[in-house]
Parts: sequence; C-alpha cells; structure tokens
Amino acid sequence: METKKLAEIFTMNGGEGQYSYAKNSAFQKAGLQITLEFINEEIASKLEVTKSLSSSKVFKIADLGCSVGPNTFFAVQSIIDAVKLKSKREGLNPESIEFQVLFNDLVSNDFNTLFMSLPERQYFAAAIPGTFYGRLFPEGSLHVVHASYTLHFLSEIPKEILDKNSPAWNGGRIHYSQKEVREAYSAQYAKDMDLFLSARAKEIIPGGFLAALIPIPHVGDRPLHYDAFESCVMDMAKEGLLDEDKVESFNLPLYCPSEEEFKVITERNGHFTIERTEKTYRAVIPDASKPSVKSFADQIRSRFEGLLKKHFGVGNEVMDELFDRYAEKLIESGTLSGSHKSFVDFFVLLKRKVQT
Amino acid sequence: METKKLAEIFTMNGGEGQYSYAKNSAFQKAGLQITLEFINEEIASKLEVTKSLSSSKVFKIADLGCSVGPNTFFAVQSIIDAVKLKSKREGLNPESIEFQVLFNDLVSNDFNTLFMSLPERQYFAAAIPGTFYGRLFPEGSLHVVHASYTLHFLSEIPKEILDKNSPAWNGGRIHYSQKEVREAYSAQYAKDMDLFLSARAKEIIPGGFLAALIPIPHVGDRPLHYDAFESCVMDMAKEGLLDEDKVESFNLPLYCPSEEEFKVITERNGHFTIERTEKTYRAVIPDASKPSVKSFADQIRSRFEGLLKKHFGVGNEVMDELFDRYAEKLIESGTLSGSHKSFVDFFVLLKRKVQT
Repeated sequence: METKKLAEIFTMNGGEGQYSYAKNSAFQKAGLQITLEFINEEIASKLEVTKSLSSSKVFKIADLGCSVGPNTFFAVQSIIDAVKLKSKREGLNPESIEFQVLFNDLVSNDFNTLFMSLPERQYFAAAIPGTFYGRLFPEGSLHVVHASYTLHFLSEIPKEILDKNSPAWNGGRIHYSQKEVREAYSAQYAKDMDLFLSARAKEIIPGGFLAALIPIPHVGDRPLHYDAFESCVMDMAKEGLLDEDKVESFNLPLYCPSEEEFKVITERNGHFTIERTEKTYRAVIPDASKPSVKSFADQIRSRFEGLLKKHFGVGNEVMDELFDRYAEKLIESGTLSGSHKSFVDFFVLLKRKVQT
Repeated sequence: METKKLAEIFTMNGGEGQYSYAKNSAFQKAGLQITLEFINEEIASKLEVTKSLSSSKVFKIADLGCSVGPNTFFAVQSIIDAVKLKSKREGLNPESIEFQVLFNDLVSNDFNTLFMSLPERQYFAAAIPGTFYGRLFPEGSLHVVHASYTLHFLSEIPKEILDKNSPAWNGGRIHYSQKEVREAYSAQYAKDMDLFLSARAKEIIPGGFLAALIPIPHVGDRPLHYDAFESCVMDMAKEGLLDEDKVESFNLPLYCPSEEEFKVITERNGHFTIERTEKTYRAVIPDASKPSVKSFADQIRSRFEGLLKKHFGVGNEVMDELFDRYAEKLIESGTLSGSHKSFVDFFVLLKRKVQT
C-alpha cells in the first residue's frame, strides 16, 4: 500500500446504495445519540457563547470526518440547538446568531452525496476537503469542533510494519496482534493525534470546544472483530482469491487507543484542558441473529471496501465472498456474542486553553 | 420544466470526460484572462487590504458559479497574488495573511471532481453549495467576490412564458426572440440580480469587491447562436426525435443583459458603487473551420446536456445527434463567422458601499 496516498483512497463508501456508509451507519448513530447528551450538558454549563462571539455574531461548528450523512446533520443540529439554548440563558437573542457549519472529510469523500442530502436548515453549510492531521481552517475561526468515530483512523500505516527487516514487520497479517506491531501502531497514533491537537489549537478560539467520540477496546488491546476479519483475508489469500503478495503490504489503517493513552497524548500536547470523559458500553449487535451479524459485517464493508478494492485490484464478487465469510466467521467465533460483545465509546470533551 | 428544481438539475457537466465542463471551458478561460487584468488593477488601486482585515488576518475570496475547474483555480490564484502584492505596498507582510477561498455552485455541481483536482495551494479551500440568488455566507465575511460567466443564468424560467394564456407564452420556442418573451426574461433577470446584489451586500464587508464577467450580445438583443440551437431542437421535435410536448415546456434558463440594463439594476439596488466597466470583444471561435465550430458546440453541450437529458428523458445518442446538427447549422447559417462573429465580455467591478 502506498501509504502517502491513504488520504486519497481511504474513505467511507459514498452514494446511497446497499453498502454505502449512508445506509450502514446506524451503529454510529446510536453511539452518537448517547454522547450528544454529554456535549449538550458541557455547552450548557461551560461554553461562554456571548464571550466567544465577535461583533459579527457568527458561530462556527466543524464536523471532522463527517462522511456523507445522515449522522453529521444530526450531530451539528443538536449542537446548534444546545448553543441557542445557552445563548438565551446568557440573555442573547438566539436569532441574532448566524451559524456556519463546516463539514470536513478527506478529498476522496463523496461530498456530492453529502450536499444533495443536506436537510432544510438554518445554518450556512460549507465543505472542507483534506486531512485533519494538518491545518484546515483559518486561525481562531472555530467555536465547537466535533469528531465522531474518526480519530481512530491513522494518517498512514507505520513504516516499520511494512519493513521486512524490522521486528515490527507485519507480513501476512493485517492488524496489530503482535506486541511490536501494536507498539508501532500506538506510536503512529500518538504522532497523528499530536498533529491533530496542534492544528486544532490554532483553529479553535480560546475557550472553544473539541468533542470527540472514539471507539476503544472493551477487553484486551484491540477490537477483536478485526481478528476474524484478518483470518478471512488470510484464508482467501491462501486459496488464491486475494493476491498473497498484496496481503504482505496491506494493513488496516486504524488504531483504538486506551483512555489512558489518549489522556497522556492530550496532556503532553498541552493546548487543551480535559473537561470531561465518559465511557459508554453497548452491545455491538442488538442480538446474535444472522441478520444482525450480517448487518455488522456490512458496516465494516462500507468502511473498508474502497480501500480493499483499490489495494487488491478486485471487484464486487470478491468483496461479496470476503464479507460473507466474515459474517460466518463472526458467528462461528462468537466474537460478537461472548464476553467481548460490548463495545466502548470513549467520549472526551476538550477546551482550548486561553494561553499556551 | 419544473422551474423550482432548476437549482437541482441545472449544472455544468461534471467529471473529466469528452463533454465535461472541465474539458470544454477554454473559451471562458480566454475571457477570464483578459478581465483578471482589470480586477488586479482595481485591487492595486482601490482595495484597502490592511483596513479590510480584522485582527485575525484572514482574507476571504468567494468564486460564485465556480463549476469544476480549472478556471476557478486560475481566477482565485490571480486574485490572491494581486492582494498579496497590494498588502506588501501597504507595508504589510503578505505571509501574515491567511487566505480562505470559498468555491460556490449549485448543490448539483460536481464538487467531488472540483476537490480531486484542487492544485497545490497556499489557501484554505471550502465548497459552498447553493444558489447565489439567496444568502450563502455569514454577514460581513467576504473581501472579494468573483463571478465569471454565471450571472446570465436565471434562477428560474419566467412563469408567463410557460402560461398558454399569456402574451409572453413561448410554446414551441426555447429562447427569447419575441418581444413579450424577451421582456419576461428581462424582468426575471432584474428580479434575480436584485436578489443577488442584496444577498452579497450582506456578505461583503464595506469596501469589499464584487467582480463580474457577463456575456452580453454583440449585435441585437440576444446571443444569436442560440437561434441556431433552437431551430435544431424544433426540427428534432418535428421529426419525433424529441417529444414535441416537452419542447413546449422547455426554455433556456439564461438571459444576457445589456450594459445599460445591468447598470440600472445595480443603481436601483443601491448597495454598491460601480467602480469600473469594460467591454472586450473577441471572436467566438478562432477560425471558421469545422473542428472549431464543433468545439464551440461541445462547449454549449457541456453546459446544457444535463438539463436537456433530464427534461426530455433522452440519452447520449440523441445528444450526439442534436449537437452534430447544431454544429452543422452554425456553419450553414454563418452565425459564428458573419458580422456576429464577435462576442462581448462585459466586465464590471462593484464596491460595497460603507453605508446603505
């Protein structure tokens, strides 16, 4: 995998078809609903709306890694409602505030679908293309930034993992189960997150909010449903359905940190105070039925299909086979129904320090 | 034609194929090159960069009706260079200014192609979906607005034209050749332009610029190459290649005003001063050869193909036939090679009044 191009090729499935992210993001929405409550409480108690507005009375909200909706529309509307409510309590007329929402994702995101599905709204909408591991917005231009189920995607695959001479070489595997590989992923994550926080520190006004929702492992050090996925990819490579050489250079570009890990990185970065953390546990699937498991597999498909097709040079038939096997393997291994059936949403609310 | 949906269906051809706007906009680029000189001269002599920047030093440029590039990238880069030069003359460090460029077009525009072709740049890029006949940006948030070859597209087809009982009924024709029809188009244009100027007056800071490039007729009251187009559509309807009933409800959604007409509307609106007008004459096609005429017809195709396909429910074959006939008709009628061979680009630079 040419890691430099990750930003161009890695994106959720666009459009509105069977395997689109738009049709396979109910899982994310359920997590979002819980955590929007936390954001709204923090806005009510700690966001100083009047103080944060300049004379132009424009309030700007960015949703990073927005994909194609509908979750992003739901999230930003909830934040706007909370800000209006708070402004009213501060004695401001909410109608005097103009809201601008900045939808961000990688350049390869399907922004056309996003725009065509924009709801009736009382805010100005804009799309911002590019990786959030660099600057995206002018200095001091944002009031609230939201990033949901997106900060676990890495900017690139750690180089050691692709190096045959490194102890962290991950040839033949596609995720981090070995210690050295895990450490390389973890180091990449720390590097990425520091870039992320430093870029946002420039863009968010003092006192502004950065709210994130990050999936973290329930037990052990990684989300175990990727072990089942990895084994399907390896099986298909052995059977010649996927190119074995290409498996050597393929790795999933995601890392789920622990709460502690995230806190250490944030404190070391130094630009934000941690105002609140929450962990919510929920079932990965509503029940252990085959349709529920299949629906979970389709959600993973909407996320990685584009990347897999590009890397392996395969089409829909191979993808059908891979994700059918994946659903079977998930059932067989009990990954989603045993002691690992819970999933943890780690919510964190950061506040931009006034002086850093 | 359901006129309310014009904003959703009327857009330049996306992608990068043979009939894409990206591949058929050299004509617009040539006009743009001439007029960017005028813009740059006005920036040098009349734009007060230091005064127009707030403490955050962000300079915002919007390109309205940007389509998919590459012209829009060329235009905004030229404006940025001129602003940097002027800021330097004012004693400012140009590197201290952060530029943000806001690319606007209708929601149906191919923003994915726009984003994928964004050049290496030193500005923050954003896309703003929606019609410029309404508000698009927060109050007082823009410094320079550019709108090239786009202000002659109407927000909707005037209602009288679609009304069988009106003297302005245009049944069987698709553009304005009759007096009453022309008057209805003109009234629609005046209404649209007033909405446009009032919306921009809210968004552009006092002293900010609005630069427009509008195609206007060289002789007579309309661009005559549409007469040839109209006659091809009517012929094909008579031959049953296009549905005759649907011709009754089809009209080209564009109007080219006279210089005088534009000035009257602007003065009546009252929010802007007219700082400069220029008219540049140039040949519509470089020579009267068949390839040149065909290339002109393709450019018209890139503009209206989407609209025609949707309205008539036809595919590429019918479009091939229509635009082949159109090229033939242009040659036969001598529209592009007689006394009408010149084309006029009307350039106007408006400045937002401080008090209105």
